[in-house]
Formats: sequence, structure tokens, C-alpha cells
Amino acid sequence: VINCCRGIPPPEAIPSAALALHAAAALRDAPDLAFQYAPIGHYRGDDALRQQLALLHSADADRIFVGNGSLQVLDLVAGLLLQTPGTDVYVESPTYDRAVRIFARHGARVRGVPVERDGLNIDALDALVRERVPAFVYTIPDFQNPSGVTMSSAKRRALADLASTAGFVIVEDSPYRSLRYRGSTLPAIYQISEPSHIIAINSLAKVLSPGLRIGYAIATPDVVSGLAALAEDTYLSPPPFCQHVAARALTAGLVGENITRCIDIFRPRYEAAVEVVQRRLGDALFAIPEGGYFLAAYVAGHEAQVLNAARSVGVILTAGSAFFPAAQPNKAVFLRLPFQALEPSEFAEAIDRLAPIVQEPAAAIAGS
Amino acid sequence: VINCCRGIPPPEAIPSAALALHAAAALRDAPDLAFQYAPIGHYRGDDALRQQLALLHSADADRIFVGNGSLQVLDLVAGLLLQTPGTDVYVESPTYDRAVRIFARHGARVRGVPVERDGLNIDALDALVRERVPAFVYTIPDFQNPSGVTMSSAKRRALADLASTAGFVIVEDSPYRSLRYRGSTLPAIYQISEPSHIIAINSLAKVLSPGLRIGYAIATPDVVSGLAALAEDTYLSPPPFCQHVAARALTAGLVGENITRCIDIFRPRYEAAVEVVQRRLGDALFAIPEGGYFLAAYVAGHEAQVLNAARSVGVILTAGSAFFPAAQPNKAVFLRLPFQALEPSEFAEAIDRLAPIVQEPAAAIAGS
Repeated sequence: VINCCRGIPPPEAIPSAALALHAAAALRDAPDLAFQYAPIGHYRGDDALRQQLALLHSADADRIFVGNGSLQVLDLVAGLLLQTPGTDVYVESPTYDRAVRIFARHGARVRGVPVERDGLNIDALDALVRERVPAFVYTIPDFQNPSGVTMSSAKRRALADLASTAGFVIVEDSPYRSLRYRGSTLPAIYQISEPSHIIAINSLAKVLSPGLRIGYAIATPDVVSGLAALAEDTYLSPPPFCQHVAARALTAGLVGENITRCIDIFRPRYEAAVEVVQRRLGDALFAIPEGGYFLAAYVAGHEAQVLNAARSVGVILTAGSAFFPAAQPNKAVFLRLPFQALEPSEFAEAIDRLAPIVQEPAAAIAGS
Repeated sequence: VINCCRGIPPPEAIPSAALALHAAAALRDAPDLAFQYAPIGHYRGDDALRQQLALLHSADADRIFVGNGSLQVLDLVAGLLLQTPGTDVYVESPTYDRAVRIFARHGARVRGVPVERDGLNIDALDALVRERVPAFVYTIPDFQNPSGVTMSSAKRRALADLASTAGFVIVEDSPYRSLRYRGSTLPAIYQISEPSHIIAINSLAKVLSPGLRIGYAIATPDVVSGLAALAEDTYLSPPPFCQHVAARALTAGLVGENITRCIDIFRPRYEAAVEVVQRRLGDALFAIPEGGYFLAAYVAGHEAQVLNAARSVGVILTAGSAFFPAAQPNKAVFLRLPFQALEPSEFAEAIDRLAPIVQEPAAAIAGS
């Protein structure tokens, strides 16, 4: 049985031995700090870590908030921005399923904007915004989970402009941004937006270690203070020790080194995955991604039947409907195909098994 | 300046050197697990840690949920139980201020039940329950933060009975329970309640390490599953590494050892603190606690004036009004006096400085 569900790094993409050395050094130098509460006022995160993350993003440290992983940071952002029940939030459709559940839990009315091969449909977003200005628009512009799509430069600028003119916040979630295998890096939306109209969320999970649970936001100092106040009344602070290890790893240049190493590991998997999906699924492939963890395909049929058929040939897939904020009117079945947690031969084997049962592509539906 | 605000353990109450050894062992034995995502399905917490916590509490492991500190666990409990806005929650008055803010953030209508010298006023609670049955009653029965009071056995049984008959849940928060300096241990409320009517929250912060951020709940397997589903959609899992260190420390008996060590450190501080408060503040002392971190006093006057006067003699106090869910009708000023983070001489010095400015006790108001 091949599990095609999980967007996690393979063990060799995590520099565990080097991290263990940094952990040992942190324990040697400051054991009392490692196991005590964070100092008063450190609800924004550990100062040394915030300084290092600020350097990484060429931002001031007072614009950095560190939380228990990027999902927790997103939950706090939602808590800060969604204090009135029924507030509108617009998301990409499809998008990261847990994000939609977080916004709904905070009482938002979540509406989807179709994702095209070059990112979200700006005209469709513009039409929604004219109807009602949302509290925020949530986007994953780089190698999106689940579609693999990257938002074009033009769309990034259009989105930044629309946020300023209409008066909403962009929540930009970019955990995969450093993992580019093809093409050149586009500006992050936070780099081209008015600072008061953007909150960028990022993470060390995909470039250093998921287990350290270091997520962070880049935002205005006011938003950072708001997130810190909410964090204090939710979990106090992340474990100081994990933050110390991350700060040391960043200071030593381990994140930069590990990104290079990850790209070396991931690029061959990526190339093999694109090749086999193009060859075996053809037009069902939604878009050729330029980085990250995910490929996606739209096929004809009914979701439960497709998932059952896949299971009967030993391939476990995520139910793609979970990634859409509302039920899709058509019958296309969305398949998310994470290719980095599997050996290239395993991924190819999974696609070989899937091909006969999903012969009819539903490419015409893609982007609708 | 003496800071009388923080309920944190002094450094010598945290076995940092022993924890560093367990951390080194965890890094040596399973570095890949330390820095990777938790395995799928481990949103309830690390299995080895849950087994150890189950042993500690003579409970089945399927009744244990582990989260990012007990405050985060309380936030998830509130998320699970408060899905309808305007739901009633009854709390002790005074109580832990962050708990009230959490319940309010989840849309609850929070009402207070007076705390007497032997715990919450059961008759007052009974009257409120007859008016409206709450989703839950939140109590800190052992050496309460902020009053230091312990709920009597009779009241524990009455509360457990009322929960069963009226049909509400008790949320029992007991981080200080093991730190008893006088008298004998009373049954925990979860030990004498119908399992479906209680969620017990506890923590390793006060008996092992605050920095590991290990909080947990003891509840029915259904509630544990509900908390795990919410946790997955909030922060995925706590850092695996912190959980591995805690599991090893528990397995090695370090928690039991450290409780003995903490009591040896804390008992003299406690005895000195009770003595100086009785001698200098007299009837203002609300109750003589039997364990934990806190003494409390009610004094006459206006809060802002008392806090300013204290600051003018170099003593920083927490605004006691923060611990009450609603404004108090009378003019008594509530002082929380945490005595464990300070050397006995520092605490005595603080009380000596406070005595002349809070000469008029407001004991008659206590327990009202």
C-alpha cells in the first residue's frame, strides 16, 4: 500500500544530526533557560530567534512574531482579525483544508476564489470584493498546497493593489517558498504590499525541522503585539528550548545549507514525478509546479468511487473535496499528489496503478 | 524593587541538569523522531508520554490528552464545550484571570461563584445552576490561584453530585496539587465524579519543567478524541522532542523525586511567608493555604491607590481585580502574594514594606 496523503519532508531532508549538536550546545550553555518559562514579555517569541528570522527576511525584528508552528500562527491571526461573527474571508479554491476549518471555527463566512494555473482568479476576487470587502484574503502564492500552482508576478501586484484600494488584509502563507526547482523566484506579496495590508506567515517546518514547531508571522508591530497578547492568553509561549535550537541553527547558517540540500533531494523527485504524471495521466495534470511538495490532477468521476478504486489497487489518496471551501458544482474529482515524502519509484508505482482507473481527464473543469 | 507578580518556580525547583541528560539521551536514541512531525494519529500526544501520565494518575492511557501546556489544553476544552455563543460558564470568584479571558473569547457568559476559605460556595453555585445549567464549572480546587484556598472534601463531593444531577461538566484545573506542605491530600474531583461529567487538567510545569510546555487532560476517550481533532486543526501536535524528554523523565522517576525536592525547597518559604503575613497583615490574610504558590489578602481602599502606594515603596503587585469575572460591588482590594519565586527574605521585605500602607484589613469582605 502506498500512502499518497502526507505533505511531510522525508527524514533525509531534516538535518537531525546537526540539530542534535545545536540542541546539545543549547543545553550546555543555558539549561536553566531551556526548561523555565519564557521571560516576561517574551510572548512574541524568543528574542534571539526573532532577530535571526528578521535577518532571514530583511525585516525589523519588531515585525516578527513566533508561535507553535504556522498553523497556530494562522489560528491566532484568525482570532485577531475575526472578532465579529459572520465576517467574510476569501480563500483560494482549492486551498489548505485546515485553514478553512480554522476560519469557520472563528465564525467567518468563507468563500472561495478559483485557482487558475497562474494563481487565483483576480477578476473573480475583484467581483467578490465589490460585493463585500472581506476581513482578509488567504493565499498560498508559492507552490500552493494542494494545487502546486504559483501566483504570477502580475497577479501578486494586482492583489496587493486591490488590498490597498479596497481595504482588506492579505494573509500570505508561504511555507514552501524556498523550495523552488525551476524558474526564478517571484517577489513575496509582503515585499510589494503596504505593510498595514499584509500579514505574512512562514515556518521552519519545510526548511529545517517540522518537529521544532516554529511558525512565524511578519506583520506590523501593532499586529505582532496583538498576536502576542492572544498567544499569552492561549498558550503563554512556545517551548523556549525549541526556539533556542532554531536560533542557533539559523545563526550557524544551517537553514540556508539545508535549503540547498533539500533542493538537491527534492529536484530529482520532482522531475520524476512530473514526468510520470504527464506520461500516465496526461491532460489530467492541472499545472506543472515550479517547486514545493504537490502536484494535482482533475479527473472525471465521483470522488468516493475514485478513492475506493485507488484503495483497491493499494493507493491511499486524500479526499480532494476537503480542499474546497464549498461543494463543487461539477463532478470533477480533485487529486492532490504529494511527491516528496515518497521515493521516486514509489511515487511512479502509485501513478502507474492509478492511471488505468482515472483514464478520463477532466482538464476542461480545471480552473473553473 | 520586589516583583510580587509571578507564579513561577525558582530555578532550583527545576531539575535542569537531569532534564539535560534525558534530552541528550532522546537525541542520541531517536534524533529523527525528535525533529520530524509527530506520526499520523498522534494528535492526542506522544504515546509513551501518555502511558506515563496514565500511570501517574492510575488512569487508562486512552483517557489522556497532551497539549502545549495546560492553558492551551483549557483553550481546547473551551473550544470543544462552548460551540454555542452565550453558553454559561461558572467560575470561582476570584479565579485564574487567563481562564476567564479564554472563556469570554469563546463566547461564554462567565459568572462568578464566591470562594470561601474551604472552596467555592456550593449554595451559591446551586442557586445559579437552578437558574441556568452551565456548560461547565471551572474550578482550581487545590491551593487555588489566586486565593491559595483548598476545596474541602465535602464540597468536592457536593460539586461532583451537583454535576451529575444537574448535568454539567466540571473542569478541574490542578497544577499545584502535588505541592502540599501541610495537612493531608484530598481526593481529586475527577477521582470521585462520574467520568462523563469531568475533565481534569494538569501540567508538568510546576512539578518538572515549565519550559517543556506539557499540559494534559484526563477525560473520557470521546472527549480526548474531540480535543485531538481540535488540536490537529489548531497546531497539529506539541513538539515531539519535548514530549520525549518528559516521557523519559517520568519513566526514570524524576517527577516523583522532583516533587519531594520542590516541597523541601518550598515548605520553608511557605512557613516564613505565612508567618510574616500573619504578623504584619493580620486579619487581612484571607486563608492559610496548605500548599501551592499563593497567599492572598483583602485590604481596604481603592485598588489603584493601593497599587501605586505599593509601587512607591518598591513592591510590584498584580491588580487583584483581574482575578474577578465581574466588578466587585464593595471596595475591598484583593492582593495576590505569590511566595515561591522569591527568597524568604525578599518576600518578608515586601510584606514589611506593604504593612504600613495596607493597615486596615478588609477581612469582613473576604468570602463575600
